[in-house]
Amino acid sequence: MNMLFLQELFNNITQRDALLRRRQPENLTPDHGQLVNACHRLLESDGEASSIALASRALAIYQRLSAAEKSSFFARLTADFAADPGPIDAAYLAYLEVRDNQSLQRLFEACEPRRQELFRRLNLASDGTYELVKMREDLLGLLREQPELAPIDDDFAHLFGSWFNRGFLMLKRIDWNTPASILEKIIRYEAVHEIQDWDDLRRRLDARDRRCFAFFHPAIGDEPLIFVEVALHKGLPSRIQPILSGESSGESFGESSGESRHTKKAIDEPEDADTAAFFGISNCQTGLRGISFGNFLIKQVVQELSQELPQLKYFVTLSPVPGFAQWLQEQRDDEQLPSSLHKSLKGLETPGWHQDKALEEQLKAAIRPLAARYLVEEKNRHGLPLNPVARFHLGNGAELHRINWLGDISEKGFKQAAGLMVNYLYVLDDIERNHENYTAKATVACSNEVRDLAKRARKLAKGETTK
Amino acid sequence: MNMLFLQELFNNITQRDALLRRRQPENLTPDHGQLVNACHRLLESDGEASSIALASRALAIYQRLSAAEKSSFFARLTADFAADPGPIDAAYLAYLEVRDNQSLQRLFEACEPRRQELFRRLNLASDGTYELVKMREDLLGLLREQPELAPIDDDFAHLFGSWFNRGFLMLKRIDWNTPASILEKIIRYEAVHEIQDWDDLRRRLDARDRRCFAFFHPAIGDEPLIFVEVALHKGLPSRIQPILSGESSGESFGESSGESRHTKKAIDEPEDADTAAFFGISNCQTGLRGISFGNFLIKQVVQELSQELPQLKYFVTLSPVPGFAQWLQEQRDDEQLPSSLHKSLKGLETPGWHQDKALEEQLKAAIRPLAARYLVEEKNRHGLPLNPVARFHLGNGAELHRINWLGDISEKGFKQAAGLMVNYLYVLDDIERNHENYTAKATVACSNEVRDLAKRARKLAKGETTK
Amino acid sequence: MNMLFLQELFNNITQRDALLRRRQPENLTPDHGQLVNACHRLLESDGEASSIALASRALAIYQRLSAAEKSSFFARLTADFAADPGPIDAAYLAYLEVRDNQSLQRLFEACEPRRQELFRRLNLASDGTYELVKMREDLLGLLREQPELAPIDDDFAHLFGSWFNRGFLMLKRIDWNTPASILEKIIRYEAVHEIQDWDDLRRRLDARDRRCFAFFHPAIGDEPLIFVEVALHKGLPSRIQPILSGESSGESFGESSGESRHTKKAIDEPEDADTAAFFGISNCQTGLRGISFGNFLIKQVVQELSQELPQLKYFVTLSPVPGFAQWLQEQRDDEQLPSSLHKSLKGLETPGWHQDKALEEQLKAAIRPLAARYLVEEKNRHGLPLNPVARFHLGNGAELHRINWLGDISEKGFKQAAGLMVNYLYVLDDIERNHENYTAKATVACSNEVRDLAKRARKLAKGETTK
Amino acid sequence: MNMLFLQELFNNITQRDALLRRRQPENLTPDHGQLVNACHRLLESDGEASSIALASRALAIYQRLSAAEKSSFFARLTADFAADPGPIDAAYLAYLEVRDNQSLQRLFEACEPRRQELFRRLNLASDGTYELVKMREDLLGLLREQPELAPIDDDFAHLFGSWFNRGFLMLKRIDWNTPASILEKIIRYEAVHEIQDWDDLRRRLDARDRRCFAFFHPAIGDEPLIFVEVALHKGLPSRIQPILSGESSGESFGESSGESRHTKKAIDEPEDADTAAFFGISNCQTGLRGISFGNFLIKQVVQELSQELPQLKYFVTLSPVPGFAQWLQEQRDDEQLPSSLHKSLKGLETPGWHQDKALEEQLKAAIRPLAARYLVEEKNRHGLPLNPVARFHLGNGAELHRINWLGDISEKGFKQAAGLMVNYLYVLDDIERNHENYTAKATVACSNEVRDLAKRARKLAKGETTK
Repeated sequence: MNMLFLQELFNNITQRDALLRRRQPENLTPDHGQLVNACHRLLESDGEASSIALASRALAIYQRLSAAEKSSFFARLTADFAADPGPIDAAYLAYLEVRDNQSLQRLFEACEPRRQELFRRLNLASDGTYELVKMREDLLGLLREQPELAPIDDDFAHLFGSWFNRGFLMLKRIDWNTPASILEKIIRYEAVHEIQDWDDLRRRLDARDRRCFAFFHPAIGDEPLIFVEVALHKGLPSRIQPILSGESSGESFGESSGESRHTKKAIDEPEDADTAAFFGISNCQTGLRGISFGNFLIKQVVQELSQELPQLKYFVTLSPVPGFAQWLQEQRDDEQLPSSLHKSLKGLETPGWHQDKALEEQLKAAIRPLAARYLVEEKNRHGLPLNPVARFHLGNGAELHRINWLGDISEKGFKQAAGLMVNYLYVLDDIERNHENYTAKATVACSNEVRDLAKRARKLAKGETTK
Repeated sequence: MNMLFLQELFNNITQRDALLRRRQPENLTPDHGQLVNACHRLLESDGEASSIALASRALAIYQRLSAAEKSSFFARLTADFAADPGPIDAAYLAYLEVRDNQSLQRLFEACEPRRQELFRRLNLASDGTYELVKMREDLLGLLREQPELAPIDDDFAHLFGSWFNRGFLMLKRIDWNTPASILEKIIRYEAVHEIQDWDDLRRRLDARDRRCFAFFHPAIGDEPLIFVEVALHKGLPSRIQPILSGESSGESFGESSGESRHTKKAIDEPEDADTAAFFGISNCQTGLRGISFGNFLIKQVVQELSQELPQLKYFVTLSPVPGFAQWLQEQRDDEQLPSSLHKSLKGLETPGWHQDKALEEQLKAAIRPLAARYLVEEKNRHGLPLNPVARFHLGNGAELHRINWLGDISEKGFKQAAGLMVNYLYVLDDIERNHENYTAKATVACSNEVRDLAKRARKLAKGETTK
Repeated sequence: MNMLFLQELFNNITQRDALLRRRQPENLTPDHGQLVNACHRLLESDGEASSIALASRALAIYQRLSAAEKSSFFARLTADFAADPGPIDAAYLAYLEVRDNQSLQRLFEACEPRRQELFRRLNLASDGTYELVKMREDLLGLLREQPELAPIDDDFAHLFGSWFNRGFLMLKRIDWNTPASILEKIIRYEAVHEIQDWDDLRRRLDARDRRCFAFFHPAIGDEPLIFVEVALHKGLPSRIQPILSGESSGESFGESSGESRHTKKAIDEPEDADTAAFFGISNCQTGLRGISFGNFLIKQVVQELSQELPQLKYFVTLSPVPGFAQWLQEQRDDEQLPSSLHKSLKGLETPGWHQDKALEEQLKAAIRPLAARYLVEEKNRHGLPLNPVARFHLGNGAELHRINWLGDISEKGFKQAAGLMVNYLYVLDDIERNHENYTAKATVACSNEVRDLAKRARKLAKGETTK
Repeated sequence: MNMLFLQELFNNITQRDALLRRRQPENLTPDHGQLVNACHRLLESDGEASSIALASRALAIYQRLSAAEKSSFFARLTADFAADPGPIDAAYLAYLEVRDNQSLQRLFEACEPRRQELFRRLNLASDGTYELVKMREDLLGLLREQPELAPIDDDFAHLFGSWFNRGFLMLKRIDWNTPASILEKIIRYEAVHEIQDWDDLRRRLDARDRRCFAFFHPAIGDEPLIFVEVALHKGLPSRIQPILSGESSGESFGESSGESRHTKKAIDEPEDADTAAFFGISNCQTGLRGISFGNFLIKQVVQELSQELPQLKYFVTLSPVPGFAQWLQEQRDDEQLPSSLHKSLKGLETPGWHQDKALEEQLKAAIRPLAARYLVEEKNRHGLPLNPVARFHLGNGAELHRINWLGDISEKGFKQAAGLMVNYLYVLDDIERNHENYTAKATVACSNEVRDLAKRARKLAKGETTK
């Protein structure tokens, strides 16, 4: 393919879109009935050119609906835009008789909710794809209260799965040369470690040892779908604060992080790094929930980085452990917890414990093993790890590599995980096998160090002392 | 949206694709069994990253299959990748009981042929979309002989309708600054008036009074889907040869072309034109048959041109009349044809009749009315015009405006349409109405001139003389 | 020309430059002697490929010189890199004899200071042009103290005049889609009305009624040379604060701003504007002082805007009046000032006088005429207007159109111009004539209103009262 | 720098230029007097905005001048646009007195021919740079007949040396994705081995083992300045025909090409090549004669290729030997040539001698040594090699590596060099040294094989037999 040529493809559409997207909506406040009518007319049109105008009008009405009217509209979508029973019954009888492909095809068509064709036609409008993603975001906000709207969500999921097929996604590096209009979205969407302002963003992006990549989709243009932040490092990073504050740092790989030696080595040149550390992955579009991009993103970024910097040896995350603090509290509340352990954990109640060397050491000896147990052995009802971040990376084929004591000493870090962070390591040769073992047998791939910690947790649980 | 940003989105993907697309396939000649196995493995994978590799492998095998093996593969697709009756029956029974959205959704899912999920997963591969389009092209070649493969085509049509939704298409001007790799495809795909070589192409494109636009799709990159060639004119053009030979020309609008006065006025500047003449629309991808782009293309090109050259007043085609010569022959073979008319048409048998003034005049008096009748009154079994080009433009909302005697004096022109060409006029204010009348009532919008010609044809058919 | 092709031309160079520009300089602190040696070697090289390396090395040394060493280096440039008297004398004698072109050419070559060839060769280095611009910036900083360095500046001016010829400049729109790396330079370089931060920048740029354009030079890449900020308006704007705060506003054109009616009309769409108001022009590169871009910039921006928005009727500035407050103070200190006027101006000493309606009216009646006199009649030693902003716009062919009372009520506005701002109007048909009259006869083109104000000033000066 | 941003910089200018360049000139045929007047007015203008219009008008007049009028114009340029003696004399006297930098600067300014300022101002016009390059092309065509015009050429050379400084050049890869408008220029400008048509071009460019690079200058846009064609190879290529016909080929490196074993190894992948063979370097702009680009081009291309394909070991040319056949004939005409050698060369008179094995062997034994002598020992009046291609590559620091018998068996090849071609090898570590030895001492770097051949030539010259 010819990249330059493709680069320019979007011009016409996007320039026009820029204008369209900003135009003020009219001042009228329509009701859902108008929208339902517009949808009927759109479905009755022949799907050709006049449909574009009808689709645009329908979407314009939707945007101006109040929350209550949107809810009513969804109710009507559920009720009036399903498939008709008559044709389904007829198609099923025909199918039952011959059981062949043709009759199956007819049955399939008869069963397709008319919502799907409606959404496909709404997509004819300029910027229609993005509007539909926003529409699903609205819908998801209502689902908890109105579970009966779920079938609409199924239709969205079905279409979006097709439209946002990985074959249509485009990877793009984000840096300080990226347009401000994109960067402000990065600031807004960062979900793992909040970006305060433009200076903060610059610290994270605009250094020779930083990389950031995002997936985009041509039809929703400059809206990122997901992005990942990367720091180049010498050795595996164990703490997030130096990364967020923009200090180039490196630690000797292979050290026992338990020893809390954080020997930093500033790297002047990306060429000196041996490690790419993924320290934040953020999904941007609520309306695309369930359409998985993270896996593809990580693998493609690993490819990109390997090509740019062939000397990189380690691809690793520095990940939060959401839910661990709560789980830990539950353990402490559990009467069966050995008193020795109970005592060890008592220190958590001392404000600023991590600045008290003795207290900190005591807690570390107890908590790291417990964290290993939490991550390796605690499962949800599907038999998979309880921790969602672990599920994500293990499912991708990574290995639970290291538990970093005092990895995140922010307020949020203490609150959600007693200050712990975890490295998940992506070993290229093992990814496939890890992934398969995880999928087939729910096996948690982990390093010896983590395995040993988990063992120690079992001893602690039996009341053995922490050393 | 930000156009510059979008422009660069494709770089990574497309550069990689360039390499991939050219790599030689391995030398092995695999059989369809291997491919079927690869497809099963792909479906059994979890749809995540390892699926990309599986999809690539499967497509690579397909590309190396012999024609016979491809045919066998499609047979297996029909047989082994439909939907299972068991779950369908169960889902139908459940649906029958409650008739609600959830049960409908389950039934819909049960009925979806597994081919669709297979195709979606094959699309994960780099360049997968294009390979699937080529696969359907292969399939279409087999359908006539093997109509039992039709369900596969239904699946393709279903997916492609979604993937090639107009919202995903990008309009791009083609000119002499376009990369050679694209231009050679324009040469290859031109279907209406063959382009001989690069010089011929240059004559058609590289002049201030020419425009060419194509639709592209980001996932199939630099492969055009459809393109249209436009000549800017002073007055409506009646003859194709001056356009193809690159002469800038213009004729006074409103003249009775029956008078065969072709007063040319060279236009030096696009700003002097009042007419944009569409003289060739070519679909490029056989594998996208039935996914309609032409309509959207014409309307968007009209928009583009209106914006660039606000003084343009007429948007008109200069179109061929394929099938007319054959129809005319059938009339002459019909014993009921009045002898007067029969005699008038006798001249067609004289080689080079169009250079014999008297003969030409006589034929013109008879043939133009007959052509009007053919276009306006002859219908196919759906009650729509017999002529496919007429169906296309009338369906788009154009008006059958003028029948041009000796509009195409090439060998092909005489052979397919006795030298006639037709102007279909797109009047912006009438498009919607014309389209609706055509769709609802099969009304053929036509000018008074054409209507009068059709009337005269009726008289001729009754044996009245041609003047 | 083919724009897309050109777009990509820079890739290789610029990507490499990006790396080069950021690389840390070596830690050594060299002295000017090393640099002088490097310059000699560069001049002795044959100007071909090895010269690139020599040039890069010399520039790298320069960048690491201390301020004192730079000063010494310039002294050496003056002393050792002029032209040799011997060859000059010989060439002059030869010229004196024949007085022909050949001998003139030899003399010209003999007289060229070797610095010029040195600078041309330094320019071989990647990013050399930018480094030379920075070098001249350093030099300009020293000139006041060391006027003997002026000849070096002449050489720079000679070369830069050639290199930054208008034919090499490129106009570029700046908006919210511009890369952050450029935008932060806009923030830094804004000289007229300081930009506080990113939010402030966004208010100024990212609205449908704002435009910003900058000139760039390919060899110094993403460094803007000069930029202008524009607000689209309905009517001529009289006050800067609503513009800076991002309020879309408009005032009825033709009103006597003396009446201080500021009827704002928000414009929703650029298409509704009739006026483009230039409210800030900032030169970015100190090292390019004396190379004039502003004139070309304004004319090209007028062209761009006329093309985008053909309905625009007025191109006008909203300009500061630096120096007016000081001049006014000098008047007040002048004993010959009529006591009536002296009394009228007394109010200036009351803090917050502009919020006291009576005081404000009194001051307005006195100050606006005086400002007209200052702008129209006060001249410098070249017979041109004393006010530099007036010189710039009048020299460009604009008309001094309106004096806006309380046009800038910021602290800076009061301090430099008693709150006044001025509209200079660019009437396309008059520009050439105005320009010529100004150049030839120093004529100040001004509106009747301003002329009347100037007349009144003369009366006030004679002690007539202000009403 | 930010490449994407730069990419778009040109849009405005170039789009406008596209229109301007094509507009028909007016029909008037002006005389040189009008142009001289226009030039005077341009010089009298103040160099600001009105100058752009004046410059455009002057260039437009020049373009419409007849050849005779152009000649008269140049005569006037020589006579009327030099520098005035009065100011020169005065400035010299002032300089003589003080001998300081200021007075030197005044003298330098007084000596500058007014033509230089004229050309700088003509350059203000859109596309002015390109027009000036074409103007110099016209001038060069007249110089032989009118040597008195040489001072104008000096002025052009002085300015172009500054404007086309290597720092302003941009390297661009040319391939099948390059716009057709550029490719047709490559076809036109190829000077070494003529390109027949588009198919021929495609054979040379559009293969995975081909590369082509060109230098461009932003101000003359899509006009290439110089380009080089490269074939990737396994081993050093000895024959041009397989390369021109598009056969991928490779020969084992280090073989004695004297043995005429041409063991080809097709390379499927660029990654398999160890050699980049430069087989054609073409200057495109006659008007830039003497501004040297080739050297920079080769070095930058070596850099680019090394980065893309790090496994490349040899950078070598396959170069013609223009003038050798003529020199050989002079030897044969020389009565002092030993009869043995005279006899050996007799075979050249037999048509088709290269197809007669015995004859060919005999000639080869005589001619290759003579070619070595011609290239290594025959010098021009500056003591540099007589052969211009040798001067170019040796001056760049290459080594005369191999003389290829029957390297070019085209008619042109036989006619200019008895079928010989030469490999010049660029050994990165030796370039600097070779270049310096060549510059300082005119040393011809050559391989042992060539040196031995030259020795043998000396023996042959003494009448020793060829074996």
